[in-house]
Amino acid sequence: MQGAFGDIVIEDVYPELDCGRYPVKREVGDRLEVWADIFKEGHDVISAIVKHREEGNEAWSETPMRFFGNDRWTAAFDLTKNTRYEYAIVAWADSFETWRREAGKKVEAGQEVTLELVEGRSIVAAAYERSKDKRLVRTLKTFDAADYEGRLALLRSTEVADLIASHPDRSRSSTSETLLVTVDRERARYGAWYEMFHRSQGIVPGESATFADMEERLPELSELGFDVVYLVPIHPIGATNRKGKNNATVAAPGDPGSPYGIGSAEGGHMAVHPDLGTLENFRRFVEQTHEHGMEVALDFAIQASPDHPYIREHPEWFRFRPDGSIKYAENPPKKYQDIVNVDWDSEDRDGLWREWRDVLLFWVEQGVKIFRVDNPHTKPFAFWEWVIREVQKDYPDVIFLSEAFTRPKVMKNLAKLGFTQSYTYFTWRNEKQEIIEYLTELTKDWPKEYMRPNFFANTHDILPHILQFGGRPAFIMRLVLAATLSPTYGIYNGYELCENTPRGERGTTVYYQDSEVYEYKVWDWDRPGNIKDYVKRINGIRRENPAMQELTNLEFHEAPNDDILFYGKKTGDNAVFVAANLDPHEAHDTHVRFPLWDLGIAEDEPYVVEELLSGRRMQARGSYFWVRLAPEENPAEIFRLSRAETAEDRADAR
Amino acid sequence: MQGAFGDIVIEDVYPELDCGRYPVKREVGDRLEVWADIFKEGHDVISAIVKHREEGNEAWSETPMRFFGNDRWTAAFDLTKNTRYEYAIVAWADSFETWRREAGKKVEAGQEVTLELVEGRSIVAAAYERSKDKRLVRTLKTFDAADYEGRLALLRSTEVADLIASHPDRSRSSTSETLLVTVDRERARYGAWYEMFHRSQGIVPGESATFADMEERLPELSELGFDVVYLVPIHPIGATNRKGKNNATVAAPGDPGSPYGIGSAEGGHMAVHPDLGTLENFRRFVEQTHEHGMEVALDFAIQASPDHPYIREHPEWFRFRPDGSIKYAENPPKKYQDIVNVDWDSEDRDGLWREWRDVLLFWVEQGVKIFRVDNPHTKPFAFWEWVIREVQKDYPDVIFLSEAFTRPKVMKNLAKLGFTQSYTYFTWRNEKQEIIEYLTELTKDWPKEYMRPNFFANTHDILPHILQFGGRPAFIMRLVLAATLSPTYGIYNGYELCENTPRGERGTTVYYQDSEVYEYKVWDWDRPGNIKDYVKRINGIRRENPAMQELTNLEFHEAPNDDILFYGKKTGDNAVFVAANLDPHEAHDTHVRFPLWDLGIAEDEPYVVEELLSGRRMQARGSYFWVRLAPEENPAEIFRLSRAETAEDRADAR
Repeated sequence: MQGAFGDIVIEDVYPELDCGRYPVKREVGDRLEVWADIFKEGHDVISAIVKHREEGNEAWSETPMRFFGNDRWTAAFDLTKNTRYEYAIVAWADSFETWRREAGKKVEAGQEVTLELVEGRSIVAAAYERSKDKRLVRTLKTFDAADYEGRLALLRSTEVADLIASHPDRSRSSTSETLLVTVDRERARYGAWYEMFHRSQGIVPGESATFADMEERLPELSELGFDVVYLVPIHPIGATNRKGKNNATVAAPGDPGSPYGIGSAEGGHMAVHPDLGTLENFRRFVEQTHEHGMEVALDFAIQASPDHPYIREHPEWFRFRPDGSIKYAENPPKKYQDIVNVDWDSEDRDGLWREWRDVLLFWVEQGVKIFRVDNPHTKPFAFWEWVIREVQKDYPDVIFLSEAFTRPKVMKNLAKLGFTQSYTYFTWRNEKQEIIEYLTELTKDWPKEYMRPNFFANTHDILPHILQFGGRPAFIMRLVLAATLSPTYGIYNGYELCENTPRGERGTTVYYQDSEVYEYKVWDWDRPGNIKDYVKRINGIRRENPAMQELTNLEFHEAPNDDILFYGKKTGDNAVFVAANLDPHEAHDTHVRFPLWDLGIAEDEPYVVEELLSGRRMQARGSYFWVRLAPEENPAEIFRLSRAETAEDRADAR
Repeated sequence: MQGAFGDIVIEDVYPELDCGRYPVKREVGDRLEVWADIFKEGHDVISAIVKHREEGNEAWSETPMRFFGNDRWTAAFDLTKNTRYEYAIVAWADSFETWRREAGKKVEAGQEVTLELVEGRSIVAAAYERSKDKRLVRTLKTFDAADYEGRLALLRSTEVADLIASHPDRSRSSTSETLLVTVDRERARYGAWYEMFHRSQGIVPGESATFADMEERLPELSELGFDVVYLVPIHPIGATNRKGKNNATVAAPGDPGSPYGIGSAEGGHMAVHPDLGTLENFRRFVEQTHEHGMEVALDFAIQASPDHPYIREHPEWFRFRPDGSIKYAENPPKKYQDIVNVDWDSEDRDGLWREWRDVLLFWVEQGVKIFRVDNPHTKPFAFWEWVIREVQKDYPDVIFLSEAFTRPKVMKNLAKLGFTQSYTYFTWRNEKQEIIEYLTELTKDWPKEYMRPNFFANTHDILPHILQFGGRPAFIMRLVLAATLSPTYGIYNGYELCENTPRGERGTTVYYQDSEVYEYKVWDWDRPGNIKDYVKRINGIRRENPAMQELTNLEFHEAPNDDILFYGKKTGDNAVFVAANLDPHEAHDTHVRFPLWDLGIAEDEPYVVEELLSGRRMQARGSYFWVRLAPEENPAEIFRLSRAETAEDRADAR
């Protein structure tokens, strides 16, 4: 005979990802809302709690659940620490509350309950046996000394109910599976990233920048409002099969090679390229970045140049072909001759996994707490689940960004396995309907529980066609979208200059001409036409408006024009709306509709609209609002709404 | 380090109910479609199968899965037996297919693949090591003797691919959880039930009918097209606290008492009431029912009259109050003094559970294969899960109908635990929108996987208000709805007579006046105003039209009138549509729209409409169709659509 009878059903628990296989994600300062269907046969009164603890703690805390309706219960508890929490639901039938309810109904129907009182007393006596709480002895004595009415009043009193509730009989309780929530620091959800390619930071043509040169840019990046400075690999680069400019198969003398061709006689993944400086210089760069209120994200690319020291020191980590060579990376018929992959089927799997963990820990010890992981979808899922956990066990503040431009389910699986953030398809979503659909999936559907988007408007490898064709208006529009649709977003250096020269004919590739991946560059960071002022204002708007720092509060609103996207975010009193012209070539206009009903503003009540990019301040009345968005003037507008609090605002309302 | 690397992810498996906690349900003759997301890091070619077997079998059968798109795979297999099947998904990376694909791409790109050929040979050699299949030795010899082109052609041939595929390397495969599907016989899904109260079958006023009297009705019920004859409890009835007519607290002499007050000195749950006859008479009734092409369903009510032999023989199965009495059933302040419940907390839990199983098995041995279970929601869930399994282990053809008019999640849970069919809220759904919502939930949402509705239009306890007020047109309309919305439906005897006298004022209770629950009745089964002809035609339509025998094929269609419900079902070529006037008082008309696009009939193509209740045959063209439904004439119409196949039909098409 299976199961204990009298069991309580606990099902449809929220949040629970893939039957509890993976943790969900939240951030420090959040409250975790837990929900479940809880019921039992018959008519017993049920009590339920959520028990929860920081992983590794012995003791559980308990939060009582409250009945919501239709057998659904809920409770919430605070996530105060950057760690993982365990939680589970415990439910039991409450015999004394059941007794009180039934006896109460009978009394109210004028029925005599002498026998019921004796039964009630035995529940009190059992509570005493369980708890040895002396106050219950007093209750029993009072009961025994009282007459019918006195006994009834005593056992129906809230005092006795509370006393018994403090010693619940959970001997036949049901407990749900124990579930996990990973609680990350705030930067996991919210931040502005600047991808700084060291080769873009040079001041002498044809020469590498140094960490010292890179430091020179930090004041400006800080001023522009960035939070994270992400560096592509900074390690020594192999010479064998090194790529030349614009991905030429043969490098010319002086060509630096792709920084993803990691490893040379000068060192591997734990070394810095001598042209950039020393490890100590790097640590200073990390410190300087902190000084400027930002932090460094480092690229983590598991691959090696044919000259990587690992090949000599650990041949067992590579697979040799019948001719004694190591297969270079390829995606047939494409070839990456400057890169070889490790053999995940190596007999020394444990050593290989540990080495990569140690590489991560090495950089963590240099002060790096964010890793942008290159192509994680080509490495074993189980490795990621293990290595992220290994690092976060001791350093829960480490953030992993998954650079997996791959199939939707693989992208999502990496997020489930533990990646803190994910690159997304944002870069390829340009039409109104596809943006709405994709953002609705990310912000309202299951992914919101485990996948945090990082919307890059461009990367060193991706110059989207809309930027190639749309120029400056497109750069502004896509910046606004990235920075306001997602609380975490990024740009790759040069975006602020509206650099959009593609390799080959416009619209045929997404690569940059003369990309820094293969050569050194010197840029004029103040070149005419730059949109740095826009970047600064948008990052400022993000910082000043809490609503911009959340993901799941995104709502799309009425704007009956296919070229104008209109949406808003609201957190507490802060309500911000964005209207963007998705067409970088033509002006478009439409009415948009502010959801005044969500803001507690009546349709006939005056309110104030601030356009945050221009600083315009308007008085308005009614939910309909007209916008006209011209590519050269105002490709997007950002509105903050507030009630008209001053007499002046009220008087001016149109 | 957790998990094996290289593992394949198998997730979002369908069908999988509550993480595999419960089996899903199907019927003999169905094909089980299995779906799953299956993927792995990187670009390996994946192979997957569904393995499946009848529970208890050692050996698995295998069905290859095919790739559907977006990492989703599917396969289907036949459910040929009334038993439970296990199924699971196995997936693995296919190294030879991966090799073939990559080598193929290189060859097509004009690349030289000498090394790849050597690598391909080693995969063939490994397949030989695994399988010792001599044909592979031949392949290897052919390879070794061939030149470059010959080797390439050999390893790219489908012959070699098929040969290797017949010895897949599953050493690193992933396997999903093993899931279960309960495969019931067809009657679980499809059947017309007639609730025959033995006390309605008498021929002498004030006297009990006998099984022989009941047999007299079988030819008629068979003629009317019923499949199941359901009997309320037929056991001896207690005298203590026996209820009188219309639920009077005190019975008058001669009052028979409620048949749910089971048990007296004459026996308990394994005995028949002497007034009905003997057990042998009952077996004869069962046989006679079979003779008429129907079968018997018996009520199973776990409760006892205060005179039940169990109380003397097994006092440990009951809970005695402080005064030595047993608490009678109550739902405070309501009291059921003629019934006591067993104590599910009994120390002899095992004995108690086994006894109820033995009661069921006793009746199974008398030929009963369907049980209508009274109030299962007040007994432990775990008991039902156990006892249904215990019975079905040896008698998989036994059907359990859950009479749980309770909260939605409890009702659904009983279905998940194993009940074959469920009473539903149909009896209380009268408005168009609520019918559409409820039926959409039952036929399209998760419940369709585990909960089979049995739509009773009335029961001995429920005379819905719409029947009280709506009279004959309401009886016809609700009959059509019950019989065509759900493949299983039922009526309680008297429905065919449009009997609708409630206890008390119309619309204040749902009880019958002078209900058979408390007294004997003699009916004229041919009384004027009866709708037996309707019943017969509707049951006939159900038998003749396979579409009517399915649940999940229900679709609602356009009918822009709130009083007219319009829906259809289609199975193969059989397409049947129902228009019902939900208002039993007034005529209503509207256009309805046949979904010709689902039937392969062009908008301008002639087709034939048969109205199956009246036998009218019309030629039509175009999806719009006018209906006028008058309560006294045609409260509902049932249309069968077919292509106009004859020249005459084509010519007549309007």
